Amino acid sequence: GDDGAARDARERQAQLTKPAGALGALEDVSVQLSAIAGSCPPPVPARPAVAVFAGDHGVHAAGVSPWPQEVTAGMVENFRAGGAAVNVLARACGARVVVVDVGVASPVEPGPDVLVRKVRAGTADLSRGPALTREEALAALLVGAQVAADLVAQGHDLLLTGDMGIGNTTPSACLVAALTGVAARTATGRGTGVDDATFARKVGVVERAVARLAPDADPVAVLAEVGGLEHAALAGFVLGGAAAGVPVLLDGVIAGSAALVAVALAPHAAAYLLAGHRSVEPGHTAALRHLGLRPLVDLDLRLGEGSGAALAVPLVRAAALLLGEMATFDGAGVARKQG
Amino acid sequence: GDDGAARDARERQAQLTKPAGALGALEDVSVQLSAIAGSCPPPVPARPAVAVFAGDHGVHAAGVSPWPQEVTAGMVENFRAGGAAVNVLARACGARVVVVDVGVASPVEPGPDVLVRKVRAGTADLSRGPALTREEALAALLVGAQVAADLVAQGHDLLLTGDMGIGNTTPSACLVAALTGVAARTATGRGTGVDDATFARKVGVVERAVARLAPDADPVAVLAEVGGLEHAALAGFVLGGAAAGVPVLLDGVIAGSAALVAVALAPHAAAYLLAGHRSVEPGHTAALRHLGLRPLVDLDLRLGEGSGAALAVPLVRAAALLLGEMATFDGAGVARKQG
Repeated sequence: GDDGAARDARERQAQLTKPAGALGALEDVSVQLSAIAGSCPPPVPARPAVAVFAGDHGVHAAGVSPWPQEVTAGMVENFRAGGAAVNVLARACGARVVVVDVGVASPVEPGPDVLVRKVRAGTADLSRGPALTREEALAALLVGAQVAADLVAQGHDLLLTGDMGIGNTTPSACLVAALTGVAARTATGRGTGVDDATFARKVGVVERAVARLAPDADPVAVLAEVGGLEHAALAGFVLGGAAAGVPVLLDGVIAGSAALVAVALAPHAAAYLLAGHRSVEPGHTAALRHLGLRPLVDLDLRLGEGSGAALAVPLVRAAALLLGEMATFDGAGVARKQG
Repeated sequence: GDDGAARDARERQAQLTKPAGALGALEDVSVQLSAIAGSCPPPVPARPAVAVFAGDHGVHAAGVSPWPQEVTAGMVENFRAGGAAVNVLARACGARVVVVDVGVASPVEPGPDVLVRKVRAGTADLSRGPALTREEALAALLVGAQVAADLVAQGHDLLLTGDMGIGNTTPSACLVAALTGVAARTATGRGTGVDDATFARKVGVVERAVARLAPDADPVAVLAEVGGLEHAALAGFVLGGAAAGVPVLLDGVIAGSAALVAVALAPHAAAYLLAGHRSVEPGHTAALRHLGLRPLVDLDLRLGEGSGAALAVPLVRAAALLLGEMATFDGAGVARKQG
């Protein structure tokens, strides 16, 4: 971040033909984009890319989701064919979609923008023991960081987080509980639609898994014990984006929980984060609060895939465009507020 | 509205490759667009137009705003030159901006997309008596309805409300209080930034003006007594858009208060309304609640001009695109939720 550019952006906001503060949260976004780019006005993100990290979860065997595990691989094919929500929303805002198999249980065929970087074929069941070894967690982190670096090297100037993994709201709830300190019951939600009995089981799984963590567990240890492969990759993706100096637009609770890991590892990365939306999942609100992020879209979505991040791209662009293109009071000859 | 198309849209949402309800409020928007168009999936709005109705307010003399009255005319010139926030946001979403002088105090030069339809050069001071005669209120209503009809005839398929008028949050607060029944103190906000003393004065003005209304005053009588020329035109614009079968995307508190008038005159018009955003102005929340509308953007904007409506255009388009372009479970061969 560049404090000079942020200061310039705040000063320029005050010159624009509008009452002070009248653009609300978009003014803050314009200041953040200026700080990230080190220039005021900031460049308008022209080439966004969504990386959809896909993985499976051993905890599925504990009955935490009503969806069959093969839906993860099925949705990877849907992403490849361009038929999922994130594909539609990415086309609408001109974003590229890259799918990354970081841990799908079944084989995935590589293809254009379908990268196979499988660390293992799904995690172990976190309700019975560690989801991953420390080495696996680190390997998945590095996959994410490398994807971010590659996308930036290919000219992408705004990175969006995406995810797919049946059962992945359970490790997310664990990460949120472990890293923000909220109770398992607060961190856990109903994911893609679970009934009361499944929900109670899910809360129990989260509670017991988090209780296993050593009080001094470092962020990678937390990730290995109760996380997921896509969560690890997303944490690395956030770090890779921040390291490359590019804003990272987060999707929902999976991304939020992964961002908690990233910021625990490198607090400086927080300055590069934008929250695309607020998911219905209660753990997401806890994560956003901990990260100090205000969501741009708040429409009760709970889909994942990067859908909430893709929806927010026009709002991020609008923030940059307003700062760059609006007339100033002096330039337009408009009188100012008195007193 | 077409109930068959709405039913088709709800059924199609259930077939799309996502958990039921996972697209949140966007699913409701897709159903509403289908009902309005009478087809499922609905057409994606391709040619939006913002009509920015400008007028001045005699109540400015009562000291309800810190901004000089000539800013209204100054901003009309800023709109003409393309330098205002609404111009930037309209360019970003491909919307046309049409400015309509329905009551600016000083002369406005007509020009391309600057229509001079002045009913009178600003309202009378509503703190001392009726703002408009009934005939003037009706004339301004008709200006708005005619602009809507003309824009639809010119091929615009989504109408956005815009407004400019120094002092216009005071008549808005009066309309909200009169038409929703909330107290003047609840309906009144700080507009473009007033201090405590000005705020107290503003609440008093609203309280006394609304108290003058006869208990059986019809919506046009309310508009004439405590409204504004742009409020009247916006009410007509809403009715004209609904009559032409086109969705109307509302901006903030000025549009919300005008929509209350429109819906009081023709309750059926409510089915054509979408709320672009929620303004910081407290009266806007009261108006949205009364209208049963959920705002698409909620980012503490309080600018007017149509800025909040323009920001929401990509979200409205996204709702239509998702319903039209997403794959179905059967089509994509993705397994479904069990039980």
